[in-house]
Amino acid sequence: MKRISLALTLMLFAAFQLASAKSKVSIDRVEPAFWWAGMEHPELQLLIHGKDISNLTPTLSYDGVQLDQTIKVDNPNYLFLVLKISEGVKPGSFPIEFKQKGKVVFTYNYEFKQRRDNSAGRQGFSNKDVMYLITPDRFANGIPENDTVDGLKEAADRSNMSGRHGGDIQGIINNLDYIQDLGFTALWVNPLLENDMETYSYHGYSTTDYYKIDKRFGSNEDYVRLSAEAKKRGIKLIMDQIENHCGLNHWWTNDLPTADWYNFQDLEKKPYSTHQRVSLADPYGSETDRKGHADGWFVDTMPDLNQKNELLANYLIQNSIWWVEFGDLGGIRQDTYSYPDANFMAEWSRRIMLEYPNFNIVGEEWSENPAIVSRWQKGKVNANGYESYLPSLMDFPVQAALKRSLNKEIAPYSNTFNEVYETLAEDFLYADPYNLVIFPDNHDTPRFFNQVNENYDLFKMGLMYIYTTRGIPQIFYGTEILMGNVDHPEDHAYIREDMPGGWEGDKANVFKGEGLSKEQKDALNFVKTLTTFRRDTPALHDGKLKQYAPANEIFVMFRYDESTKVMTIFNKNVEDKDVELAHYEESIQGAKSAKNVLTGETYDLSKGTLKVPGMTSLMLVIE
Amino acid sequence: MKRISLALTLMLFAAFQLASAKSKVSIDRVEPAFWWAGMEHPELQLLIHGKDISNLTPTLSYDGVQLDQTIKVDNPNYLFLVLKISEGVKPGSFPIEFKQKGKVVFTYNYEFKQRRDNSAGRQGFSNKDVMYLITPDRFANGIPENDTVDGLKEAADRSNMSGRHGGDIQGIINNLDYIQDLGFTALWVNPLLENDMETYSYHGYSTTDYYKIDKRFGSNEDYVRLSAEAKKRGIKLIMDQIENHCGLNHWWTNDLPTADWYNFQDLEKKPYSTHQRVSLADPYGSETDRKGHADGWFVDTMPDLNQKNELLANYLIQNSIWWVEFGDLGGIRQDTYSYPDANFMAEWSRRIMLEYPNFNIVGEEWSENPAIVSRWQKGKVNANGYESYLPSLMDFPVQAALKRSLNKEIAPYSNTFNEVYETLAEDFLYADPYNLVIFPDNHDTPRFFNQVNENYDLFKMGLMYIYTTRGIPQIFYGTEILMGNVDHPEDHAYIREDMPGGWEGDKANVFKGEGLSKEQKDALNFVKTLTTFRRDTPALHDGKLKQYAPANEIFVMFRYDESTKVMTIFNKNVEDKDVELAHYEESIQGAKSAKNVLTGETYDLSKGTLKVPGMTSLMLVIE
Repeated sequence: MKRISLALTLMLFAAFQLASAKSKVSIDRVEPAFWWAGMEHPELQLLIHGKDISNLTPTLSYDGVQLDQTIKVDNPNYLFLVLKISEGVKPGSFPIEFKQKGKVVFTYNYEFKQRRDNSAGRQGFSNKDVMYLITPDRFANGIPENDTVDGLKEAADRSNMSGRHGGDIQGIINNLDYIQDLGFTALWVNPLLENDMETYSYHGYSTTDYYKIDKRFGSNEDYVRLSAEAKKRGIKLIMDQIENHCGLNHWWTNDLPTADWYNFQDLEKKPYSTHQRVSLADPYGSETDRKGHADGWFVDTMPDLNQKNELLANYLIQNSIWWVEFGDLGGIRQDTYSYPDANFMAEWSRRIMLEYPNFNIVGEEWSENPAIVSRWQKGKVNANGYESYLPSLMDFPVQAALKRSLNKEIAPYSNTFNEVYETLAEDFLYADPYNLVIFPDNHDTPRFFNQVNENYDLFKMGLMYIYTTRGIPQIFYGTEILMGNVDHPEDHAYIREDMPGGWEGDKANVFKGEGLSKEQKDALNFVKTLTTFRRDTPALHDGKLKQYAPANEIFVMFRYDESTKVMTIFNKNVEDKDVELAHYEESIQGAKSAKNVLTGETYDLSKGTLKVPGMTSLMLVIE
Repeated sequence: MKRISLALTLMLFAAFQLASAKSKVSIDRVEPAFWWAGMEHPELQLLIHGKDISNLTPTLSYDGVQLDQTIKVDNPNYLFLVLKISEGVKPGSFPIEFKQKGKVVFTYNYEFKQRRDNSAGRQGFSNKDVMYLITPDRFANGIPENDTVDGLKEAADRSNMSGRHGGDIQGIINNLDYIQDLGFTALWVNPLLENDMETYSYHGYSTTDYYKIDKRFGSNEDYVRLSAEAKKRGIKLIMDQIENHCGLNHWWTNDLPTADWYNFQDLEKKPYSTHQRVSLADPYGSETDRKGHADGWFVDTMPDLNQKNELLANYLIQNSIWWVEFGDLGGIRQDTYSYPDANFMAEWSRRIMLEYPNFNIVGEEWSENPAIVSRWQKGKVNANGYESYLPSLMDFPVQAALKRSLNKEIAPYSNTFNEVYETLAEDFLYADPYNLVIFPDNHDTPRFFNQVNENYDLFKMGLMYIYTTRGIPQIFYGTEILMGNVDHPEDHAYIREDMPGGWEGDKANVFKGEGLSKEQKDALNFVKTLTTFRRDTPALHDGKLKQYAPANEIFVMFRYDESTKVMTIFNKNVEDKDVELAHYEESIQGAKSAKNVLTGETYDLSKGTLKVPGMTSLMLVIE
């Protein structure tokens, strides 16, 4: 176990400083390395790192930029510069000079770049989109040569389910046509930043450099190329970001700026998070529990960042904005939203949305209780006065309710859809339920096909629910070909299996439609038809929703706007059922026919009943 | 099956009217029969019933009272009079004369009574109280002579578990000393109004006369005497009222005032309530479902009242106020609060609280979801704009969570108290959680001793939770002697077993403490000690609450005000545990000793740990 003793570090530095007063000064990091002219926020904080640099005096001269503060911290290897930026600052470069005893000992050429057209007005993902989620190490290996990279600790080993398999940015670019062809218009890729950890580095949640794409995935420029290629195909790129923790091998771990950069900096005494998220909302909660949840570590390899430190807070906020601007992003997905300092997260969201008012950010609050999840959405009036600026959340409550509704055994007088019906009814808790991300599964949950115990009928009903209900549907890569692993449904490494066809020599190739079973082909077609229909049907974007209480294992929902009315009927009975249409007259309003979205078949509604086959759901357009 | 055809009734009446134009007029009901001077609401609506009276012309003359409207309805046997009452009206009587062709054919002497001193300022039950709940037919038989009464359909039969057993108001009066001695300060008695049904009439929820105590329980005057005798002992009387439905044998069923007095008046076509309470809150709910929940009937013998009819609405509101004033009540418990028309219930609560600003009313919304229950509490800002005026609700969510937390099996790393901890944390949803009624069981749920599978250790932990947490504790009669029936835990008739000692010749007598087992005596003492301690300890009334996230099957709560600090520790481990006090320092604040509320024992806290025996909870006063 490592131990970070700041006191000892400081003593060593103090000694070093005396000895090296006349030695050559070297600055190894300026972060962010560049910025843009014309941003909304009038300040920029630069982190400067280099051995023994804290006594240097920085100066700069550029129209509209003023060096407002030079901040020293405990550790003499850091300086933080705060620049004040005038509204009309022009793109361009200028030297920042670092002086010692009046003499320039180091110069850094800082650039304010020109922003893309309408960068501030960029449209984030919304309920007009359908989102595809990719775990990049497991999707497609575009460049086998970068599977293992000198200088990064973990080498590729496809035989190790928890190891790196070689998937990369080029692999995603190669298959953007496939994603577009399925109908998706937004792409959430699990983290791509450097994770230079000894093991389990493939998942990407142990950031070791906030400004660098992991070389085994590609370069920062490859990331920009992915974004541009996606954009060409009408696909918005969503970056997966993590403010709560970094990886233990982050470059700053052995040279921490301050004594409070990490929570519980003494690794041997650190507690783990209690995961008692309710303590934050609890009117009777203790401070002890709130700290226990927010400040404890996730795991040994992920130090808990202390965002109450304002220098770190600013560093993280700027980093997020930097990536939106640099990567031309269409959204951010934020990991473990309730675990960082809550006030920091509000400020983080506020600052990003201030720069990009039409942007979107979805946070992960893995609670099955809408009363808890809804607390984090912008516009919610919280009892304790907490104000959030986060526009969207992952809808874990509906995901859990859907799974349980589908799996519940039917019995006489049962209404197994009640749970999902009642959970959606709790939408009165949300400030903006139409902006929630809805999903049957993701990279952390069992595969949806496993959730329904590989029952293909239930699988289709579940997806049809997702494609019908309000929000922004998100589909995990491989769901379209029934990926799942009945032997290891809970094992992350198996949940994130390699996409067939992503590797040279794979037996099956989903991208070419080769080697798929009949059921897989059917599922692929099912997903494609519903995704494209959802994409192309405004009534399924922001159209109103009406749901009817389930009865006799029949559950009916409508989505509708002025031009289109979509009716989805779920029949969980084993037998076919003649559904009485009069019960839904409030929505059908005398319409005489309806068209099946999947088959194109037309049904006569004037008979007063509609036959729905057993264990089936129908999505109909009322005509 | 009966059938109420209003059309047919009206035809018959029309015929009758012609035939009887000259016959003697008889008015058999004026409701309310009298009223009070000095009420806040400036109107009084009188229901007048008598064969063929709708063409009579009523007149009256009294200072400060004006006959504002005379309303005829479909049925000629009714007249509704609306009196406008001036603020300064004096107590006194005056004749209401009913004229036919200018001639007085009937006179009713109406009285405005003098109110009791400070009637409007009466204090309702609050968190300073501890409430005892009685099912009157099953508590004590004070007058065996009234067990069976001529003119009322169901006779007493103690051998029939679902029949009437003879308990009555005198039986309660006889045992008020027992209730007072246990420490209770509020008494909720299940309905006592006339229920002239053929069977199952003992429970009282099928009202057949809103203004008359069932003779098998006693008289209206007996009810006033019960209230007065309770008041003498510092006990507030709480009336159980039902606005949703009446009994099918209500006197008006065969002579309904209007075609819309009941919902689904055609008994053969009536639907049952769907019990989909969420439909009322659902932003996507259909009108069909809202009506299905609120307008469907509970059971065949309970017609669903249509409170959207304003005459009925006023009738019900006045009836409730009449009983507060007549019965000198300290509170109302309202049955099935979400089932009547929601706007009516808001108006009902508003009108009562307008008359008695310090009063209290607790509504039953049997949902385990705080998001649903909290919608009905006064002060809650609801998403759909619904404004409630109901001060208190039964806390079913905590009741259900407590039961599950207690029964959950412990396992390595389990925290079985998590559910009750998390449910209480959701109190941020309520406008006023300190005014909720908390209970381990009631007349509709399995007995608490059955809920915990007759585990006496769990029983005590559960009660200690109820006596510690915020709200107003309510204990069901017999809980203090571990009443329960393991063979029929879900059967209402068995849940409401006869209280031993309430009947001449009972083998055991709880009131005299005779014939009880050692465990029953211990439970009785446990309940008495905690009830009196709660009654006498302001920190347990409106003192703040702090709860600490459960860990290692230890769960700790504090209630505290400026003078007193109560700490309750639950240890669900089989083994004794040394609880580390440092974790609770935020609440203990260096205190050095604590006294056990049950045993009087004093513990030294300065050692840093406190030993808590396995499967035990301790309630301590920190000193």
